[in-house]
Amino acid sequence: MTLETAQQLRTALASVVVVPVAPFGPDGAPDTDNYASLVTRLLDGGITVITPNGNTGEFYALNQAEARQALEAAAKAARGRAEILAGVGHDIATATEAARHARDHGARMIMIHQPVHPYISTEGWIDYHAMIANAVPELGVVLYIRTERITGAHIAALADRAPNVIGIKYGLRDATRFAQVARDAGLDRFAWLAGAAELTAPQFWAAGARGFTSGLANVSPAIPLSLLDALRAGDFDAAMKVWETCRRFEELRAADFSADNVSVVKEALAQLGLCPRDVRPPSRPLPSEIKNEVTAILRSWELV
Amino acid sequence: MTLETAQQLRTALASVVVVPVAPFGPDGAPDTDNYASLVTRLLDGGITVITPNGNTGEFYALNQAEARQALEAAAKAARGRAEILAGVGHDIATATEAARHARDHGARMIMIHQPVHPYISTEGWIDYHAMIANAVPELGVVLYIRTERITGAHIAALADRAPNVIGIKYGLRDATRFAQVARDAGLDRFAWLAGAAELTAPQFWAAGARGFTSGLANVSPAIPLSLLDALRAGDFDAAMKVWETCRRFEELRAADFSADNVSVVKEALAQLGLCPRDVRPPSRPLPSEIKNEVTAILRSWELV
Repeated sequence: MTLETAQQLRTALASVVVVPVAPFGPDGAPDTDNYASLVTRLLDGGITVITPNGNTGEFYALNQAEARQALEAAAKAARGRAEILAGVGHDIATATEAARHARDHGARMIMIHQPVHPYISTEGWIDYHAMIANAVPELGVVLYIRTERITGAHIAALADRAPNVIGIKYGLRDATRFAQVARDAGLDRFAWLAGAAELTAPQFWAAGARGFTSGLANVSPAIPLSLLDALRAGDFDAAMKVWETCRRFEELRAADFSADNVSVVKEALAQLGLCPRDVRPPSRPLPSEIKNEVTAILRSWELV
Repeated sequence: MTLETAQQLRTALASVVVVPVAPFGPDGAPDTDNYASLVTRLLDGGITVITPNGNTGEFYALNQAEARQALEAAAKAARGRAEILAGVGHDIATATEAARHARDHGARMIMIHQPVHPYISTEGWIDYHAMIANAVPELGVVLYIRTERITGAHIAALADRAPNVIGIKYGLRDATRFAQVARDAGLDRFAWLAGAAELTAPQFWAAGARGFTSGLANVSPAIPLSLLDALRAGDFDAAMKVWETCRRFEELRAADFSADNVSVVKEALAQLGLCPRDVRPPSRPLPSEIKNEVTAILRSWELV
């Protein structure tokens, strides 16, 4: 990867990075036509980075063939209009195979999911990511940090071995910890994303993030894009007004250890007639009181 | 599954349930011959329940073909001598496929790994396990509990839908919580295992567990079997003497969020000439001071 490409990809990442939900058809199988329509709607709404096979896309509830289908549908819909940041994970061989598959379908970046192995050494965390990143040196690699055990020094050591690591999705909520990690790793060396989405975005932006992930964008791309505009303009008062707009929706998604992270987004899309509300276990169908709260939010957003 | 079979399997589980390590050859691929030898050594040592594809077998570092190979090697080695409790996991379709594969190779039980999906609702946790268990009603199903969010009521609700759930591997360390959960779920309805191995076994036994899992057995089957004998005899003084014998080894495995859970076992086996010490990331090669500690432990056990 040339320095120029790396810089180009870091710039592309400094945006609203959206994880599309994965709709299921009446037979329970992924509905790739519906999926492609949702991705197209995101692009039409101004989104420029799409992450197929993120957690909001129920990556861990898909089998490997279904995950490949999701990648292909997103890549086809996005071609020439947006960057594909492909989620990959599981064991090293499976993640590497998925990265190559994504590359062959036009993705220029992968996001490596947190390893699911229950026994993680920090040295092994570095090895795991380096082995995947080194297998696809032509792709930009984004790390997904979900544990405080990984420090800035670990990230820097990894990037020394894998210079195609260009971005960090920092998925914890502690913005002060984020400020420390980003500086210890190298603030200018990576594109830093607030990985716990809108509610963390202003605080992380203040500390040096230049983009954030979004599941809410599935429902309304305009809301996170207005947050991005405010942050880019340095207008934190305006940003926090958008934050208030997002707040209840994101709190519903975060409640009870994020049990309804996906269900809430799909419920909103179902109420808008865009996607069935079905989720796969261990997500759950929503109780009616939460459905009603989603209705009220959509009304407040003037979407219904 | 007949009531008689269910009872037979519960009785079989009330023992030392061993997760064999998965050796890698010089090319980095799983060495199934070595794996079969390690399983045979366990059987020769008196172990009667083998769990291929458990966490100590680096399940999440194997791809799906490698996991099937491990199952086949263990099943072949154990045929007629021990029960196979096959670890299965990932998405529901993949777990179900692995369960059927295990059944077709002679396994009578599966252990369902904790779902790796980051967004888990308790209702969805029940659905996830029920769908897998219902797909293989002829197999006994053991749950692997690693979160306090799952209560006895959740377990009972699941077993109402899936009567082939016959055992619980309770993988947390809080023996009082375990006592509560086991009673709320139904103490006599399931075989209860201390799922965090030897150091939790006496305390869990006092509260109603009748077996425990073991990785240490890979090194010395005699030590956990002597612990089981003491517990079965109700001799807690003797049990705690064995506990002291296990202590340092298990503490090395548990240190730093269990980073070296597998590496410590493989190091001991390597020093005994039984298996290479290689682990896959995110496990790590051990630093020399821990290797030296392992040597001292093996000496104290009179194995070198």
